[in-house]
Amino acid sequence: MNEQLKQFIELNTPQVEATMYALVERIEAPANLKESMVYSLKAGGKRIRPLFVLAVLELYGKDKQDAFIVGAVIEMIHTYSLIHDDLPSMDNDDYRRGKLTNHKVYGDGLATLAGDALNTLAFGVLARMNLSAEKRIELVNLLSVAAGAEGMVGGQVLDIEGEKRQLNLTELEHVHVNKTGALLRFSIESGAVLADATPEERAILVEYAHHIGLAFQIQDDILDIEGTTEELGKTAGKDVASEKSTYPALLTLDGAKEKLAEHYNYAIAALEKLNIDASILREFAAYIVHRKN
Amino acid sequence: MNEQLKQFIELNTPQVEATMYALVERIEAPANLKESMVYSLKAGGKRIRPLFVLAVLELYGKDKQDAFIVGAVIEMIHTYSLIHDDLPSMDNDDYRRGKLTNHKVYGDGLATLAGDALNTLAFGVLARMNLSAEKRIELVNLLSVAAGAEGMVGGQVLDIEGEKRQLNLTELEHVHVNKTGALLRFSIESGAVLADATPEERAILVEYAHHIGLAFQIQDDILDIEGTTEELGKTAGKDVASEKSTYPALLTLDGAKEKLAEHYNYAIAALEKLNIDASILREFAAYIVHRKN
Repeated sequence: MNEQLKQFIELNTPQVEATMYALVERIEAPANLKESMVYSLKAGGKRIRPLFVLAVLELYGKDKQDAFIVGAVIEMIHTYSLIHDDLPSMDNDDYRRGKLTNHKVYGDGLATLAGDALNTLAFGVLARMNLSAEKRIELVNLLSVAAGAEGMVGGQVLDIEGEKRQLNLTELEHVHVNKTGALLRFSIESGAVLADATPEERAILVEYAHHIGLAFQIQDDILDIEGTTEELGKTAGKDVASEKSTYPALLTLDGAKEKLAEHYNYAIAALEKLNIDASILREFAAYIVHRKN
Repeated sequence: MNEQLKQFIELNTPQVEATMYALVERIEAPANLKESMVYSLKAGGKRIRPLFVLAVLELYGKDKQDAFIVGAVIEMIHTYSLIHDDLPSMDNDDYRRGKLTNHKVYGDGLATLAGDALNTLAFGVLARMNLSAEKRIELVNLLSVAAGAEGMVGGQVLDIEGEKRQLNLTELEHVHVNKTGALLRFSIESGAVLADATPEERAILVEYAHHIGLAFQIQDDILDIEGTTEELGKTAGKDVASEKSTYPALLTLDGAKEKLAEHYNYAIAALEKLNIDASILREFAAYIVHRKN
């Protein structure tokens, strides 16, 4: 990883995490519910989405205080979706990132409710931010579209259908644009809102986010084949074993790598249209296509 | 039921329901997800919460257009909570109001996601209303607190705990103030926001809502004992059979009826402090304590 990006991640990740925990700790709610919410927030992950919000503020040289809060909100939504995805009625996973999944520790009922509470809290935190009402309502609206039936939840529904039959490339792309892409796009777009980016800049940043979201997913599919269980922190080869619709399954491994390069190039080309030094987002793109886990 | 209230309910319920369905129909999402969301919205119920929003606007002689939308939003939240409550991991109910529950028709996975999508959509609809950004953000904030860990979801967690041991009266009241009371309070309070009620009027209306919420729950507990399965549309005597913590269990049936009368009287007394003709809310209170289902 590039040194600038490494420093950026190391510098900001602790505050992203501290902000999330503090936002849950301060609510008045049953202790076991809060514990279950925090358990999954603490289960780790790369915090890519909050770091994307921060990266946009960095680009504009703006103060990052609000970005930590929006980043924490995004991680709440991402975490609730993982808790619900892991339930026996969906993916039925016992472990995530080497830790027991929420329902294995707290039971299916409380896990469902912890997810619900994180989803709902995310919108409340946005509503209480120290921003103009217009900006807050714009963030609430964008997040609702990104996270709901028109975005992440809808993508998850399509993904479940895709387990029953082989998807074609258009359908597969549609799954990922929604399931993982929508929240990633919100990360970048919310950063643009906070940074007062012009409409043109915002459209460019969203274009970057679209391609980075797809590149992220393609690299995930490639790593399932090329990565080892140790590197990944999850069982390698699971997609192939379950005959899941993936980019390598549809395009061959080489074809998937070409597709990955294509989206990477589109993302970089988008940034070149910005009249701002976007090196941090360029480095993020390189990291995403070269990552080993 | 009083004739004025009967007319009010008959006049407004169809538009409450039409608004809900239209708000879901217009989103771009997988067809089976939308179908599952609409299935449970259409499963009926008294639409008490939306009618409360409308009643507050009626009180102030204000236009009800916005209240139909806020009412639909509340019904989305109420419906998502029922879908999740009915899941095998929670109450494991196969029927609600004589219809198969969502997961019995669509499976546990899609039912969970339909609930998630309704929860998320509710906030998006508020964000897109034709109101000042300040009012929209106030509604988002109030709803997030009412529906989340600090309100409805938190109450549901306490309720599950209460199935494991006998609660005392303070604990039981705490469950209901959150599990059902918080969303009912939001119904009244959102009406006050839309009607531009003064802070004093709003506090009085919230006081009314607090007592009506508890009265509603106590009458529910009483009906479980005194009602028949036909009248209720659900199995009578279920609470007693499952040794659930209820008002009659803690206070005897007569004691519960006294408590019901007490909260009814408090609700009516609150209304008398308003310098507005609140007959519609008085009639609502009478209906709630005398209802047979």
